[in-house]
Amino acid sequence: MGTRFDPSALLETLKTRAPLVHCLTNRVTVTPMANALLAIGAAPVMTDHPDDAEQMTASADALLINLGTPTQESLEAMTRSVRVAAADHRPWVLDPVGVGATRFRRTAAHALLEYQPTAVRGNASEIMALADEAITGRGVDTQHTVEDATEAANALLSYSKGVAISGQQDHLLTELGHWQLTGGSAWQPRVTGTGCVLGALMAAYGAVSDEPFEALAAAHLHAAIAAELAEARAEGPASFASAWLDALARDDLALTERAIERVHALGV
Amino acid sequence: MGTRFDPSALLETLKTRAPLVHCLTNRVTVTPMANALLAIGAAPVMTDHPDDAEQMTASADALLINLGTPTQESLEAMTRSVRVAAADHRPWVLDPVGVGATRFRRTAAHALLEYQPTAVRGNASEIMALADEAITGRGVDTQHTVEDATEAANALLSYSKGVAISGQQDHLLTELGHWQLTGGSAWQPRVTGTGCVLGALMAAYGAVSDEPFEALAAAHLHAAIAAELAEARAEGPASFASAWLDALARDDLALTERAIERVHALGV
Amino acid sequence: MGTRFDPSALLETLKTRAPLVHCLTNRVTVTPMANALLAIGAAPVMTDHPDDAEQMTASADALLINLGTPTQESLEAMTRSVRVAAADHRPWVLDPVGVGATRFRRTAAHALLEYQPTAVRGNASEIMALADEAITGRGVDTQHTVEDATEAANALLSYSKGVAISGQQDHLLTELGHWQLTGGSAWQPRVTGTGCVLGALMAAYGAVSDEPFEALAAAHLHAAIAAELAEARAEGPASFASAWLDALARDDLALTERAIERVHALGV
Repeated sequence: MGTRFDPSALLETLKTRAPLVHCLTNRVTVTPMANALLAIGAAPVMTDHPDDAEQMTASADALLINLGTPTQESLEAMTRSVRVAAADHRPWVLDPVGVGATRFRRTAAHALLEYQPTAVRGNASEIMALADEAITGRGVDTQHTVEDATEAANALLSYSKGVAISGQQDHLLTELGHWQLTGGSAWQPRVTGTGCVLGALMAAYGAVSDEPFEALAAAHLHAAIAAELAEARAEGPASFASAWLDALARDDLALTERAIERVHALGV
Repeated sequence: MGTRFDPSALLETLKTRAPLVHCLTNRVTVTPMANALLAIGAAPVMTDHPDDAEQMTASADALLINLGTPTQESLEAMTRSVRVAAADHRPWVLDPVGVGATRFRRTAAHALLEYQPTAVRGNASEIMALADEAITGRGVDTQHTVEDATEAANALLSYSKGVAISGQQDHLLTELGHWQLTGGSAWQPRVTGTGCVLGALMAAYGAVSDEPFEALAAAHLHAAIAAELAEARAEGPASFASAWLDALARDDLALTERAIERVHALGV
Repeated sequence: MGTRFDPSALLETLKTRAPLVHCLTNRVTVTPMANALLAIGAAPVMTDHPDDAEQMTASADALLINLGTPTQESLEAMTRSVRVAAADHRPWVLDPVGVGATRFRRTAAHALLEYQPTAVRGNASEIMALADEAITGRGVDTQHTVEDATEAANALLSYSKGVAISGQQDHLLTELGHWQLTGGSAWQPRVTGTGCVLGALMAAYGAVSDEPFEALAAAHLHAAIAAELAEARAEGPASFASAWLDALARDDLALTERAIERVHALGV
C-alpha cells in the first residue's frame, strides 16, 4: 500500500477535476463545510428540497449525508438522494451525528445505513450507536474511546467499504485492514464543524479514488496537516478555525508521500 | 449578594459539568452560537425536527428558544420542547427576536411565554413588545431605550424569574432587584449573533445555577469581559467577532469576584 | 452620468437611513450576508415562514430573493413576499443561484422572474440559464464567460431594470447602457457567499436609489474596493473573508467619485 498511495497526487487530481460534492448537511456547520470544500478545490452544493436534491445528486460526483439537524423535508431529500447515489454507484458518505442521543436519530441513521454508504464517519460513541442499532437494537451510552469502537466499526464494514472513527487518534478501517493516524490539533474538537468537514472531505476524495482506504486517508491527512499549520497561529478556537481553513487551501501543503508516515497499520 | 456570587466559581462548575444546551435557534447566528457554547465549556446541540427536539430536550441540561427565523416545523419543535422543559423543571431561556416586527412573531412569542421561561432576553423594543402583547395586546414601536423597557421587564417577571435587557448598558431584573451592568464593546451590536449568544450563555449558566440573578449576571459578565479583550484586536466587525470567540474560551478570563464591580444595583 | 453618480453620497444616505433589508436566502451564506449588511450600515432581517415573511416584507425597505437552498416553505414565503414587494413598488433583487443545475431551480426561478425584479444578479451561466428558460425553455450548460452572457442579460432587461453578471470582470446592464467594472480580488470566488453578498448589497443600495445603474454600481464598487483592501491581509480564503467584512465596514473606504474610474461604459 505504501508504495501505491500518494495523497499528493490524489489532491492534484481533485484540484483538476473539481468534483461537485452535494452535501445534505446540518445548518450549524454548513458554512465552514462549503468553505472547506472550496479550499481543497472541490465544488460544494447544498440543497434540502426533495425534488431539487434528487436532481442535484444525479449530476453530483459525490454525496455527503450528515444527520446533525434533520428536518422532515431534509430526511426525505436524503432518502431520495441516497437512492440515486446507490443506483448510479456514486460515492456517498454517512455522518450519523449524535446518533446515540435520541431514538429518532437511531431510526433515521439505520434507515440510511441500509443503502450501504461508501464510507461512514463518526466519533467512537456514534460508531458504536450506529452499529448497535444496526445489529442488535440495543441502546448505547456516550463517551467511549476509539478503542471501544473498533468492534462496532468492524461490524459496520458489512454495510460500508470504509469506516472512520474520529478521536484523539483517528482510526480507519476497510476490509483490507485497520490503521491509526497520528497528528492534528487539540483545537479541532473545540470548534464546531471540524468533524463534519472531515466527512465532506471524505466525500470529495471519494470522488477521485475508488480505493476506500485512499479516500479516507487522504481526507484525514489533509485535515490533520492543515490543523497542525493552523495551531501555530491560533489564539483561541475562532482564530484556529480561520487558520485551518486558510491552511486547507495552501498549495504548498505538505501532503506528500511522507505524510503516510503518520499512518500506522494496526492490522492488515 | 456580593459575598455569595462568585462568577469565577460558577464558570469552573460549568467547565466541569459541560452542560448539554439544546438550542432551538435561528439559522443566521447558529454557527457562532455553537462556537460560543463550546468556547465557555458547554456542549451545544441544535435540532428542529419536532420528534427529535422533544427527545433531545429530555436529555438536555438547559434549553434556549430563539425566535429569529421560525419555521412551521421549528415552532412545533419549540412548543413540544418547552413543554418537556416545563414538566421536568429544566431551565430554559426565551429570546423573542424581532417580536415587535410582525403580528406573527408576537403571537408565537406570547404562546411560548405562557410556559413560563426561566429567563427572558431581548433589547428594549423586544422586551416592550413581549410585555405589551402579554398584558394588553397593543402594538409597540421599535427603537426604545433600556430605561423605557424597565416597566415592561418588571411586568414580565410575573412570567419569568429573570429578565435581561440588552443595550448600551445591560439591565438585569429578578424578583430580588434590578441591576445595571457596565462594560462590553461598541462592536457587539455591529456583529450578528452577539445578542443571540448572550441568550445561549444564559441557558448554559442556568444549567449550573438555580439562582436567577447569578445565571444572568455570569453570562453577561463573561460576554462583556471577553468583548473588552477582543476590542483591542478588532480592525472591524469580523476580526472583533473572531477575537470575541477566542476570548470567551480563555482560561485566564478575569471573571473573578472583582467582575461584580461592574454590576450596579439600581433597586433591590 | 459621471457628474451625477456619487457612490460616496449614496453610502452616506444608506448609513443615515439604515434600510431594513429582508433576505429570503440560503442557509450556507446567511451569516456572512447578515454581517455584510450590518457592515455597510443596513439592517438585515431573515425569515422563511410564509406568514412571517409576508408581514416582514411589508415593513422592509428592500427584499432579496436568493435561490441557493430553497425549501417548500421558503419558496412559498418567497412568492408571497415578492407579491407584496411588487404591489408596494418596493425594490427587490433576484439571485437565481444554481438555476442551471436542476429543472427544479429553473422552474422556481422563472416563476419568480415573472414578478419583475428590480434587479437580477448571477454568474454568466446563471444569467444564461435564467434567460433561456424565460425565453425559449432550452437547457443551458455551465461554465460560460461574462461575454457569452451579454445577450442573455439584455433579454432579461425586459423583466428587470438592471442585470449584474459576476465574473473576473463584472458587467452591469440597464436600459441606459452596458458597463464593465474592474477591480476586486481573485480570492472572492474562493470564499462561499461573496456573490450572495453582492445581491444583498444591491438590495440595500436599491433602498436608497431609484436609479438602476447607481444601485448596482455602488454595490459592486463597495464590494470590489473592500476586496482589494482585504487582499493585502489575506493568507488564505478565511482570513480574506474576515478582512473583507472588516473592510466593508470601514468609514474611510475610498468609495469616492474617483471610484467610478473603475466603471467603463461598453455601450450607452
